[in-house]
Amino acid sequence: MKKYLAELIGTMVLVLMGCGSAVFAGAAQPFAAVGTLGVAFAFGLSVVAMVYTIGKISGCHINPAITLGMLVANKISAKDAGFYIVFQVIGAILGSAILYVLAKGSGSTTTLTGANGYTDLIPAFVAETVFTFIFLMVVFGSTSKGAANNFAGLAIGLALVLIHIVCIPITGTSVNPARSIGPALFQGGEALSQLWLFIVAPFLGAVIAAFVWKAIDTEPAEA
Amino acid sequence: MKKYLAELIGTMVLVLMGCGSAVFAGAAQPFAAVGTLGVAFAFGLSVVAMVYTIGKISGCHINPAITLGMLVANKISAKDAGFYIVFQVIGAILGSAILYVLAKGSGSTTTLTGANGYTDLIPAFVAETVFTFIFLMVVFGSTSKGAANNFAGLAIGLALVLIHIVCIPITGTSVNPARSIGPALFQGGEALSQLWLFIVAPFLGAVIAAFVWKAIDTEPAEA
Amino acid sequence: MKKYLAELIGTMVLVLMGCGSAVFAGAAQPFAAVGTLGVAFAFGLSVVAMVYTIGKISGCHINPAITLGMLVANKISAKDAGFYIVFQVIGAILGSAILYVLAKGSGSTTTLTGANGYTDLIPAFVAETVFTFIFLMVVFGSTSKGAANNFAGLAIGLALVLIHIVCIPITGTSVNPARSIGPALFQGGEALSQLWLFIVAPFLGAVIAAFVWKAIDTEPAEA
Amino acid sequence: MKKYLAELIGTMVLVLMGCGSAVFAGAAQPFAAVGTLGVAFAFGLSVVAMVYTIGKISGCHINPAITLGMLVANKISAKDAGFYIVFQVIGAILGSAILYVLAKGSGSTTTLTGANGYTDLIPAFVAETVFTFIFLMVVFGSTSKGAANNFAGLAIGLALVLIHIVCIPITGTSVNPARSIGPALFQGGEALSQLWLFIVAPFLGAVIAAFVWKAIDTEPAEA
Repeated sequence: MKKYLAELIGTMVLVLMGCGSAVFAGAAQPFAAVGTLGVAFAFGLSVVAMVYTIGKISGCHINPAITLGMLVANKISAKDAGFYIVFQVIGAILGSAILYVLAKGSGSTTTLTGANGYTDLIPAFVAETVFTFIFLMVVFGSTSKGAANNFAGLAIGLALVLIHIVCIPITGTSVNPARSIGPALFQGGEALSQLWLFIVAPFLGAVIAAFVWKAIDTEPAEA
Repeated sequence: MKKYLAELIGTMVLVLMGCGSAVFAGAAQPFAAVGTLGVAFAFGLSVVAMVYTIGKISGCHINPAITLGMLVANKISAKDAGFYIVFQVIGAILGSAILYVLAKGSGSTTTLTGANGYTDLIPAFVAETVFTFIFLMVVFGSTSKGAANNFAGLAIGLALVLIHIVCIPITGTSVNPARSIGPALFQGGEALSQLWLFIVAPFLGAVIAAFVWKAIDTEPAEA
Repeated sequence: MKKYLAELIGTMVLVLMGCGSAVFAGAAQPFAAVGTLGVAFAFGLSVVAMVYTIGKISGCHINPAITLGMLVANKISAKDAGFYIVFQVIGAILGSAILYVLAKGSGSTTTLTGANGYTDLIPAFVAETVFTFIFLMVVFGSTSKGAANNFAGLAIGLALVLIHIVCIPITGTSVNPARSIGPALFQGGEALSQLWLFIVAPFLGAVIAAFVWKAIDTEPAEA
Repeated sequence: MKKYLAELIGTMVLVLMGCGSAVFAGAAQPFAAVGTLGVAFAFGLSVVAMVYTIGKISGCHINPAITLGMLVANKISAKDAGFYIVFQVIGAILGSAILYVLAKGSGSTTTLTGANGYTDLIPAFVAETVFTFIFLMVVFGSTSKGAANNFAGLAIGLALVLIHIVCIPITGTSVNPARSIGPALFQGGEALSQLWLFIVAPFLGAVIAAFVWKAIDTEPAEA
């Protein structure tokens, strides 16, 4: 149970802080806007912080795409994977709810929820699939046998900074179905009707990564 | 005594450098303003630097909310906690005093002290409580048994960067009563009349974190 | 074969993400542009992520200049060096191809490929040679016997951030022939006619670094 | 001799890259200016990269103030300290010379050398003294017995990022006499007549730090 709660809290932090940066600091305030770079750091540093906080408890997936990838790679049981994803989604909704309370009177000119969205379907689908593939490769590689596993939190979090720098202008960046579900519930409208893409594409990218990583890993875990 | 002096110096550095970044580099100078992102890095990197400098001496709390959390979690004696907080506040006042000397002729258009403040009470209180809770979770988790403790300085400092990115537009970001007390004494006025919030909310968030962390920790320290 | 595929994937990620940041986030979008600093972080964090992902498989060169330097320093066989460079170039072309698909409808006002280029030959040649020399010094030093090798990924990746901050205004920053070849094929024109410089200068800088490092290393590897 | 050459190269890199960022990327180019934040990262990441590259050879001072502090703390011989400082200054001049070649035709609107300077004497002297004191505290602490010494390169380099964020608007940030001497020779005029401050104040801050650190260190090195 502790690991499920850890996943809930970690995903709550990721959604609250990542999306919160777009709501509060995305546009100019008294100080200059943090812009895409600042929002990218907010998402990525959330992961850095959470990995070194709850990593020992749950492995710190806080992302259903990572959990699915780990399931395909036989690194988590089907039961645990199911509970992980449920608690991740609950955490994301909680994070979005807290953000909703904080944001509704803020007069933010960028977004009130940080929901994902797209204008062109094909580039959005390709981007979310490819970038989740890259993200999961970093997850598999940096946590694998023979790698400097203590650095995985930095490698994975900084990879997420990187992915947001490139992908925020395309879709706002999901690569994480839970991160998309939470804000979409509060945003409604197009965010809900486009939500399928931010579930299907990250899951597809994660599954591809699981197979590609298995093909190139030089110290594969015994089955 | 050495650990109390270390806390004083560490808190002085945090307040001087964090608030100093807002005073000197918050607005455009010959170069472009560092904006919210640069101020966020200044606060967070102060913590990274101080943890690896004085961590071995005092544990580098440099924040009364962390000290209170550690007291609730039975990781520091009541006597030490009291002295830590007194020396932290003295260090914050010293940091603000040095900044006052440097800033008074600077013509800064942002702030001369870096004092915290708010316009809407409820979101400010919620934000300071929730963000201190998140901050303390990272402190408890990254320094706990079974975690990669050498990375705690990076995890905690980068978490503070993250929190500032989101919270600077709301309150300027305290999550640290000492960091608010120092500048408020030199700023006066509203900074003093609102100061209670930046003491009560961080303390509340820290106490909640102490209980939540205890509930999910898989390798709890023996009592 | 696994190590060659790892080099292909790593170089693909570097080119796709580094050049992609310039295409999508280099100019203002809904959020403020990430500018030179954001593009610099995109290239450097790609390397951080890839070192901790594929470092154990191939050493994570993902740059023909590094591979040539390692060959001169007798740290890789001639056969492996040849295959590394071939697979790096294929990876770079794949990265550029994916970016081409994503970018062509983006209406980017900065660049559609992230190709390198220059206006003044001499400063460009000097810059690419000197900055590749510096980059390779970091590669040799941080991976050498007696250094904190686990930190090499951070040191090398953050050195690449640094080099991009300085060199983007001069040439866009190559210091990596594969990173220049991929985009030039899709850009054509001047990017192709200037391509020689981004092969010759990095190779020259790498060879100089191999000899300078050998001269100052205090714990040289036995021959 | 190897360690002296390492100090020369390291200081050359610091000056070339740090000052080069101000020359080339300080103002808007095709991309947005990196501004104070980007220049701060350039100086700090130069140190991160160099510590993990030449740290094992010379300890990577690349700053006469650090060398003086180490001499006062009995951690380097007088003869070595003298040679370190001479080679650091030569390295700084070489870095400035390379930058001069690259910069003269660049049409940079910020600076052609990155020289330090001030308008108000007292705040400049206080700032350089206090910030060098803070910098040296991080150097002493993070490299001391009982600290996580492998992280010293990150702690020291990120502390330098922090110091530049705050101090660039005041003096351009020296905290390093060699870093000021190199550019001043090519800039001439006021940069030369103000140069004394960027030698005296950093040395003063370093000596104070040596005594303060000795007073609070809980695991002092045996004499």
